[in-house]
Amino acid sequence: MKRFDSDYLEGCLPQILERLAQTNLEQTPGYGEDPHCARAAELIRRACGNDALQVHFLVGGTQANVTVISALLRPHQGVLCAESGHINVHETGAVEHSGHKALALPSPDGKIRAAQIRDAVRDHYDDFSHEHMAQPGMVYISFPTEKGTLYSLAELKDIAAACREARIPLFIDGARLGYGLASPACDVRLEDVAALADVFYIGGTKQGALFGEAVVFRTTELARDFRYNIKQNGGMLAKGRLLGIQFEVLFEDGLYLRAARHAVEQAFRIRDAFRARGASFLVESPTNQQFPILANDEIARLRERFSFESWQKIDGDHAAVRFVTSWATPDANVDALVAAIGETR
Amino acid sequence: MKRFDSDYLEGCLPQILERLAQTNLEQTPGYGEDPHCARAAELIRRACGNDALQVHFLVGGTQANVTVISALLRPHQGVLCAESGHINVHETGAVEHSGHKALALPSPDGKIRAAQIRDAVRDHYDDFSHEHMAQPGMVYISFPTEKGTLYSLAELKDIAAACREARIPLFIDGARLGYGLASPACDVRLEDVAALADVFYIGGTKQGALFGEAVVFRTTELARDFRYNIKQNGGMLAKGRLLGIQFEVLFEDGLYLRAARHAVEQAFRIRDAFRARGASFLVESPTNQQFPILANDEIARLRERFSFESWQKIDGDHAAVRFVTSWATPDANVDALVAAIGETR
Amino acid sequence: MKRFDSDYLEGCLPQILERLAQTNLEQTPGYGEDPHCARAAELIRRACGNDALQVHFLVGGTQANVTVISALLRPHQGVLCAESGHINVHETGAVEHSGHKALALPSPDGKIRAAQIRDAVRDHYDDFSHEHMAQPGMVYISFPTEKGTLYSLAELKDIAAACREARIPLFIDGARLGYGLASPACDVRLEDVAALADVFYIGGTKQGALFGEAVVFRTTELARDFRYNIKQNGGMLAKGRLLGIQFEVLFEDGLYLRAARHAVEQAFRIRDAFRARGASFLVESPTNQQFPILANDEIARLRERFSFESWQKIDGDHAAVRFVTSWATPDANVDALVAAIGETR
Amino acid sequence: MKRFDSDYLEGCLPQILERLAQTNLEQTPGYGEDPHCARAAELIRRACGNDALQVHFLVGGTQANVTVISALLRPHQGVLCAESGHINVHETGAVEHSGHKALALPSPDGKIRAAQIRDAVRDHYDDFSHEHMAQPGMVYISFPTEKGTLYSLAELKDIAAACREARIPLFIDGARLGYGLASPACDVRLEDVAALADVFYIGGTKQGALFGEAVVFRTTELARDFRYNIKQNGGMLAKGRLLGIQFEVLFEDGLYLRAARHAVEQAFRIRDAFRARGASFLVESPTNQQFPILANDEIARLRERFSFESWQKIDGDHAAVRFVTSWATPDANVDALVAAIGETR
Repeated sequence: MKRFDSDYLEGCLPQILERLAQTNLEQTPGYGEDPHCARAAELIRRACGNDALQVHFLVGGTQANVTVISALLRPHQGVLCAESGHINVHETGAVEHSGHKALALPSPDGKIRAAQIRDAVRDHYDDFSHEHMAQPGMVYISFPTEKGTLYSLAELKDIAAACREARIPLFIDGARLGYGLASPACDVRLEDVAALADVFYIGGTKQGALFGEAVVFRTTELARDFRYNIKQNGGMLAKGRLLGIQFEVLFEDGLYLRAARHAVEQAFRIRDAFRARGASFLVESPTNQQFPILANDEIARLRERFSFESWQKIDGDHAAVRFVTSWATPDANVDALVAAIGETR
Repeated sequence: MKRFDSDYLEGCLPQILERLAQTNLEQTPGYGEDPHCARAAELIRRACGNDALQVHFLVGGTQANVTVISALLRPHQGVLCAESGHINVHETGAVEHSGHKALALPSPDGKIRAAQIRDAVRDHYDDFSHEHMAQPGMVYISFPTEKGTLYSLAELKDIAAACREARIPLFIDGARLGYGLASPACDVRLEDVAALADVFYIGGTKQGALFGEAVVFRTTELARDFRYNIKQNGGMLAKGRLLGIQFEVLFEDGLYLRAARHAVEQAFRIRDAFRARGASFLVESPTNQQFPILANDEIARLRERFSFESWQKIDGDHAAVRFVTSWATPDANVDALVAAIGETR
Repeated sequence: MKRFDSDYLEGCLPQILERLAQTNLEQTPGYGEDPHCARAAELIRRACGNDALQVHFLVGGTQANVTVISALLRPHQGVLCAESGHINVHETGAVEHSGHKALALPSPDGKIRAAQIRDAVRDHYDDFSHEHMAQPGMVYISFPTEKGTLYSLAELKDIAAACREARIPLFIDGARLGYGLASPACDVRLEDVAALADVFYIGGTKQGALFGEAVVFRTTELARDFRYNIKQNGGMLAKGRLLGIQFEVLFEDGLYLRAARHAVEQAFRIRDAFRARGASFLVESPTNQQFPILANDEIARLRERFSFESWQKIDGDHAAVRFVTSWATPDANVDALVAAIGETR
Repeated sequence: MKRFDSDYLEGCLPQILERLAQTNLEQTPGYGEDPHCARAAELIRRACGNDALQVHFLVGGTQANVTVISALLRPHQGVLCAESGHINVHETGAVEHSGHKALALPSPDGKIRAAQIRDAVRDHYDDFSHEHMAQPGMVYISFPTEKGTLYSLAELKDIAAACREARIPLFIDGARLGYGLASPACDVRLEDVAALADVFYIGGTKQGALFGEAVVFRTTELARDFRYNIKQNGGMLAKGRLLGIQFEVLFEDGLYLRAARHAVEQAFRIRDAFRARGASFLVESPTNQQFPILANDEIARLRERFSFESWQKIDGDHAAVRFVTSWATPDANVDALVAAIGETR
């Protein structure tokens, strides 16, 4: 079985395992207060082009989302997000468990627009009963989105402007940030993300690390006491250096984006193969996730040799499915898939 | 200004004030462990036709909703409700603040259908990633709904059946229960509500009491330790007898429904006046809230002498508004409103 | 049975019932946005001698405590309090339910000292692992304390100074504030409380109202969005005017303190009777709660005709008990009790 | 600098790194649903001698504590624990953040006694106002405790009996379980822990893994829906196999206890060196943490070459400090420390 279910099927980039072996018997303080975390933070600040950024390392995405959101909101505030946003759909209500309502906005393509934010904030305060509703206290977007789509730089600037008008922070979930930045369709650079977001994270788990997300705050004030919040949310890794070491490897010499580029190229080969045989797509994704719409019998036939996720029923005979590539996807797997797609022409 | 904004504009039924005065210097234990609460609970059990019911008295609706929901759900569970449900819209995210996601279902008329519940539960467990989503752990409906509409007995039975199939409790918010039961369009009796709901409440605040909601559990097991939950949620009134005394007055001799009937009759006079001049309605409401769709200039003209809530913009020139009557609505106010409506013909 | 169990045995001061009757059919907006609440807030500001105070009305003490504490703390912060503090002992863990640790300090007499606050804050930040402990984010004291004791003005000033040094707010639970202010042993005035606390409340429930606590913030900034917090915590009374009306009556002409003085005088008669027959006390209380230490057989004998609470076992033969008086305690009840105490000489 | 600060100074046992390298490019499903987790669970069940156990893998201790505690308690329940318990002291109030009060019991040696549990439960229900206090809903103990001490099998059986009498679960934090089981002073076996605890965990982080705790439930019912709770608490590792792989290595051939034994032996060498020069100890610890009481100048002198934690001030001239060994502590480090201790004789 060749797998295209997700971008966390394998372990990690071999360079990371090597470095873990090299450093294994070093003795370091725990909880992220070691030299590796310090150096990784420095490398990330440099990659972002901003010395003032505050960097913290967490283990996973849900943990990063909840810790950031609950650290920045007051109790009566909710978080504006796309209806399909990860926090609204796939985190077992973790944000609500932390006390905050996810204020979901309609989003056919996984993106929300600055105008939706402006409307939601204005409608809230215009409402006579606004104190009876959760107050919009933050905007959460994903880059790329759950559907693989990307914000343009202009869209991102407009969203950031809407947030500043409303005086609420902009939080960008970058669990797959590299797969976005590495796309040829992307006009946003890491520096732009760092300049526009009040807080964002650089995903490691889906991008070649064993695990780990680097949470980056724009200012010291936004990050105030964040280590307390990490600990309280069960996210403070005792051997924090494991996070530092991995991000050192990813950001020392551009490995992070290099590995991501591989995934996007493989995804495009799959996309092109489906296109060539006339398939349509649920959404045009310029990143490592592709959502072709296929006939149920074709799906069944492909499933004999390939694994991939069902995404959405289209009609009685068709469904959208999801193929995901990663830093690790072997050429051979894609070759086999492309050939199998061709056979259906 | 004659007010039709809500059903809590005035104090309370005069019989309640009288009783409070008569009992004022009695010395009783606090926290609801007094003879008045005991007797009120007994009267409610009798009115519901079931000796086994567990009755607790809380001060207000949001408090009742959150206390019941958080007492019955496990941490990873959410509550299925109408998109327009009070808990989803008008409680400042109180349910989420208690840790639980409101799982909102589309509902143009304020009601949800048994089929929606069955689908939501089946879809949840069918999903490969269901552990990544909040688990449906309860159904919350309002009777009447936020839009004044009513479930038929058949609909209610079907919803209760869907809940039992899914092994999740059915919770009925009865903040305006009397205004539903007193409607000529209602084929549901209090006994039916008590038999079908696992837990429900009988609203006092909007139905002639100063405040107070009587929460009724179908079994001792469902109500286990509920007094701890009340206290923890800040809802245990020190002078709990105030709740008992009010519900004694309401349930001694049928005052509860009698007072409600007055409200519905007044609402129907308003409805008929709008109908007579050809107005359409956002929804057909058989209870004490009416939602005519009016031209903006008519709204402005009526607002000179009457207060009422804006509800929903229909188009550039029209909006739905809400007129609410109550146990206290004076004939003279309705006479004046009916006359004013007539003038626009 | 003549009752001395608590200060919420009766209904309310008759003046309050009268005013409720007079205003019963007024139509007012809900949720505390009515003229009575506005006027009551104004009267309280005047009594406190500070026009800038922000006043909000809540139904009960636990509700007030949790709403204030959770509104002002960040998620990783706890609240310093006496071990015997109401929030630490008698609120079913409501503060913890809202997410915050009660950081209890030893307190034999119910009071905490400024030095304890300074030590706790210094020890916290001195600890290498302070990020692994809940951060002291507020100080909570009661005036009078759970044991009826009072802070002197000098003590209160020192506590307020310790809070300002630590940049954390001082919150004073005044559920029985009047019984403290009315004590001849008290050198603190309401103006002092208002000047020294960042937020405090003036108890109504135990001081002659049916219910109600007036929460007073020192600045607009501290009270920002507090109405959202009230609603979210289920504390926004629909007929909010009931709170306004009661506090109008209490603060129009000094009734609040007058009624409290009656209670303290009755308590002193009880205290003196016990003293006269040589009883010792658990603590010297200058307010409406008295804690004599009695032999078990005397307790049993008194219980035949009087109700009062067991407080603390002293040894196999003796226990401390609690006698509480209130605005409503009739002379005849105290006469009977004093006589009965005398019989044991 | 030779470090004795903690037992998570190094990376991991080399066998684990090797296995991670061998398995790195396997493609497996995420979130713990892979063959490695299945096999590791099977190995643990076998080591515990009970096929019915439910095993789940989490990343860290705080996460495990909060997820288990909040999954098993109802909202109004608290958790009985030693005053010095990790959940009460060193988790930034994470248990309270999840809504539950830590009900701390005095514990000079880090242990609690069955009698304390029985008393606490009886006192709770005997109290007239028990509904105003958090209900004891679970017992949490650590094995070994924070102070390195161990429960005897008889003590553990008595605690388990007290829990069953009270019908509340017993939860054993085994972050350092191996260092307890490997002690020559220990008469408890892993099978005993598994038979007596309702839920416990086998610590990996401090015992030679990169990270990871294996949570073990006694019954399917206790573990119901626990994967939802893991996800909601941000503890569901995407590449869950990393946990499975590590516990496979630890439990395949007894490596877990073998590695622990090394630590205990090294600790005993340190203990004996201090004893030989006449030092006293804060507590007699038969495990990998030792707490000698030293003069301040000796502490200063040792700190020049060794790192270790300050634990508790004893008097103006003396303090208790903590030396910790682990699976990784090199002989050479202990040799150097022992020699340095000897020099002070």
